[in-house]
Amino acid sequence: MGELTPERILRLEPDAVVLLDQRRLPDEEVELRCETAAEVAEAIRTLAVRGAPSIGVAAAYGYTLAAERGDNLDEAYRVLAESRPTAVNLVWALEQVRDDPSPERARALHEEEVSRCVRMSAHAAELFGPATRALTHCNAGGLATSGYGSAVGALRTAWERGSLASVLVDETRPLLQGARLTAWELETLGIPHAVIADSAAAHLMALGEVDCVVTGADRIAANGDAANKIGTYGLAVAATHHRIPFFIVAPTSTLDLETATGAEIPIEERDGREVTTRFAARNPAFDVTPAALISAIVTEEGVHRPPFATSLPKVVRA
Amino acid sequence: MGELTPERILRLEPDAVVLLDQRRLPDEEVELRCETAAEVAEAIRTLAVRGAPSIGVAAAYGYTLAAERGDNLDEAYRVLAESRPTAVNLVWALEQVRDDPSPERARALHEEEVSRCVRMSAHAAELFGPATRALTHCNAGGLATSGYGSAVGALRTAWERGSLASVLVDETRPLLQGARLTAWELETLGIPHAVIADSAAAHLMALGEVDCVVTGADRIAANGDAANKIGTYGLAVAATHHRIPFFIVAPTSTLDLETATGAEIPIEERDGREVTTRFAARNPAFDVTPAALISAIVTEEGVHRPPFATSLPKVVRA
Repeated sequence: MGELTPERILRLEPDAVVLLDQRRLPDEEVELRCETAAEVAEAIRTLAVRGAPSIGVAAAYGYTLAAERGDNLDEAYRVLAESRPTAVNLVWALEQVRDDPSPERARALHEEEVSRCVRMSAHAAELFGPATRALTHCNAGGLATSGYGSAVGALRTAWERGSLASVLVDETRPLLQGARLTAWELETLGIPHAVIADSAAAHLMALGEVDCVVTGADRIAANGDAANKIGTYGLAVAATHHRIPFFIVAPTSTLDLETATGAEIPIEERDGREVTTRFAARNPAFDVTPAALISAIVTEEGVHRPPFATSLPKVVRA
Repeated sequence: MGELTPERILRLEPDAVVLLDQRRLPDEEVELRCETAAEVAEAIRTLAVRGAPSIGVAAAYGYTLAAERGDNLDEAYRVLAESRPTAVNLVWALEQVRDDPSPERARALHEEEVSRCVRMSAHAAELFGPATRALTHCNAGGLATSGYGSAVGALRTAWERGSLASVLVDETRPLLQGARLTAWELETLGIPHAVIADSAAAHLMALGEVDCVVTGADRIAANGDAANKIGTYGLAVAATHHRIPFFIVAPTSTLDLETATGAEIPIEERDGREVTTRFAARNPAFDVTPAALISAIVTEEGVHRPPFATSLPKVVRA
């Protein structure tokens, strides 16, 4: 079991993009070598690499690889940009390297991504009192962010500062990113943790075993409403009921001031077979947590408090 | 696919107790023939039959079978009583047939159990407005209650009366009783339904897709606090947040006036391997929903409203 470094999660070698295959975690820690842009696109498409920032860096590396090989760059751009339909970050990262697809530029993009996470995690860790028992949902970790993590990054920094006691990890049905990926990251980092069924969170809050809830976000509207993995909203409702602070840690690229409120954020409904193989099922993949239930939104720029309609625009304009 | 009758779920034949094997649902509808009290005890122990009322009836049938066969009745009583550690109902049912272990007495006990469910379901169905979209958790169905169901019985009666539109079924991690058993029952009954990840419930409430929540209960304290499958409490918190009524349907035998509040109800913590096979896990199997979050408790005696400290004692004394 190695350390959880950015290079271990994702790196550019002279003739390949090498990534830790997230499909095979936690059972096996296997590296996947992608030697063409098409192979990187396939790794993105099949979720060997997932999480918007990680996908963006992988795509930038894949495009750079194509340039180094002298492959058709328009074709490389197209196949990478189309590998996941909804990741805005993917096209943004490709644009960053389009005019200068050098290994140096792509690695700098990766380093910027990691340093953004380290900064937001330092801000978020300030919110932790001594011996905090935190609860998190899904995987907003190093695997998803090409190295350090947003919500898991905050836990990691708080642990290094001695202010984190332990972490409860929602297993995060239906795809179990918490039980598979976040638990694996915390184990690798040596941070005490226990996986729980998602529905046990409210019970453990009632027992007084949760001091704060920390999650990432996929998109944050101008008023602070935050879309994230299905189940985040229910956690925020339960945290509010128990007067437990609920923190979101996410990069400023997640802030979408063009979207006024969460009601305008489209929610992907995925195949019901992820939930059950036999019966009819509904499978909303994300939900929206209203700003009123969020104690603070933390970005690499700092800790932003309600009213978010005032505090968030300042971040983006800064 | 047959009808969901009490005899199909559990019956006494001249030389066997025959039960629908709940371990193999929904993939296979297989009957298990138990020809001795020890075989019935094994069926209870291995969860081929589960749910307190079903376990009680199965045990009474098993004891009667031993009497018919001329087996050692003390030994039959012991092996059945010890088959599940926490089911109070089990010993109660054995006591009912101990002095008169005849097929007639045991079948009467079964009929009483079913008729109690039919009565509480009729009371509960009165709470449903037209075209109600209900949400339920775990399996408080015919399988658990030897024939008709408590919470699922309420849905069944409401459906027959034309006041139920559809049912959202929490999959109910970690053992998936909702996805496996409740969905199978609703399919068998022809009631429209969709299974959801437990954590999707709050999101669907926010979308306005849930008109009421209906669950069973394992034990109800004198003040109305109700212990039930883990996740019930979080549902009640979410329902309250959305001003959605939260109903519990359970027999009067569930009322425990000796227990003042839910804080005195012990919560079983089961093996963490039910949640995850690799990482440390916490696995509380039940939680307690405070009376303040419950809109009504329905028993075979009627609909009981807050304050429960006043309304519940009247039910038991009546």
